[in-house]
Amino acid sequence: MKKVAVILSGCGVYDGSEIHESVLTLLAIEQNGAGYRCFAPNIAQHHVINHLTGEVSEGENRNVLVESARIARGNIEDLVDLQTQEFDALIVPGGFGAAKNLCNFALDGDNYEVNTQVLSACQGFAKADKPAGYMCIAPSMLPLIYPKGVQGTIGTDKGTAALITARGLIHENCNVDEVVIDHAHKLVTTPAYMLATSLTEAASGINNLVKNVLALCK
Amino acid sequence: MKKVAVILSGCGVYDGSEIHESVLTLLAIEQNGAGYRCFAPNIAQHHVINHLTGEVSEGENRNVLVESARIARGNIEDLVDLQTQEFDALIVPGGFGAAKNLCNFALDGDNYEVNTQVLSACQGFAKADKPAGYMCIAPSMLPLIYPKGVQGTIGTDKGTAALITARGLIHENCNVDEVVIDHAHKLVTTPAYMLATSLTEAASGINNLVKNVLALCK
Repeated sequence: MKKVAVILSGCGVYDGSEIHESVLTLLAIEQNGAGYRCFAPNIAQHHVINHLTGEVSEGENRNVLVESARIARGNIEDLVDLQTQEFDALIVPGGFGAAKNLCNFALDGDNYEVNTQVLSACQGFAKADKPAGYMCIAPSMLPLIYPKGVQGTIGTDKGTAALITARGLIHENCNVDEVVIDHAHKLVTTPAYMLATSLTEAASGINNLVKNVLALCK
Repeated sequence: MKKVAVILSGCGVYDGSEIHESVLTLLAIEQNGAGYRCFAPNIAQHHVINHLTGEVSEGENRNVLVESARIARGNIEDLVDLQTQEFDALIVPGGFGAAKNLCNFALDGDNYEVNTQVLSACQGFAKADKPAGYMCIAPSMLPLIYPKGVQGTIGTDKGTAALITARGLIHENCNVDEVVIDHAHKLVTTPAYMLATSLTEAASGINNLVKNVLALCK
């Protein structure tokens, strides 16, 4: 059975992992006959967003690993314990947590950096020539993880694509049900909720991504 | 298009709605060609559980509606605004939130009561002869919502079933991929994560529940 490491970034689209994307990813991994283990960095969330009002919940602090555990029903591990050799592939769902906690793209689009634990884990798969899938806004991290010349998509938003292109991503527009595959880097990306207007739309691209990531496994 | 009201109870299996069950429910509603709107009571959670450790997070307070909004990507309404006549059916996912926030079955198995807002909303569907689906531990509320003689399942756990039977539910054992249908009350129940050991197993019963609830719509 192929084993996939899934990196989560909290629990909720505005300050953590997009919940639908995360669950659809885990479901697709199972449905394609593979297994998964979830990981998240044991760090403070950038902030907490009240998902009813969209406003910052002042004075509230939450931990990325602890909140990610909600999506994983408690079955989650500290990202520093991720051993690349135990897995065939990596998948990173989106949500603002990917752009606020895993990296800070949402906070500094010009000079963003990837969290060092996340960078180490993701580069581990790149260096081991193991396939990876990044969805939604998570591909913003790719030019900082891979050598120059990496291809990917965040959908069709020109402003977002321009910022990531400036850091080195070769961006391709992509529909919600499609994926961009960089065969040289064994890398699959899909827009998910960068474009999706329903769970069904999100699932179409995510299922496509998971199938292609698993197909790229040796 | 048939319209389903979905009542959530927070965000996370140990103190709120079971996330996988909730997402799989919304996905199945879409995939069966129906639409949904999410609701939750605007009340304090019974408590907050650290989902990494399983322990109560002392001193932390969260709101059921605000946390449920994470699963609904912000598209959620206060349960007191639920108008039965705007919907064809009701579905209530499980998770400990159903047994700690919507009712207090998990806290007082002998003398539990249903939150008055929840009771009013759920009885609205019962009185209007509109179908409903309850999964996981949510069927514990059924004997307090429906007249005597209502049938349902929480899976196969004898101790849990005995407590609910004592309040009036006619309990039937049920496998994870199956449903119990009480045709007289247009009521469908399935064990979901009372028995499921994977997303795929949970999805099998939840898809079955959603199909049957929609089939019972006029």
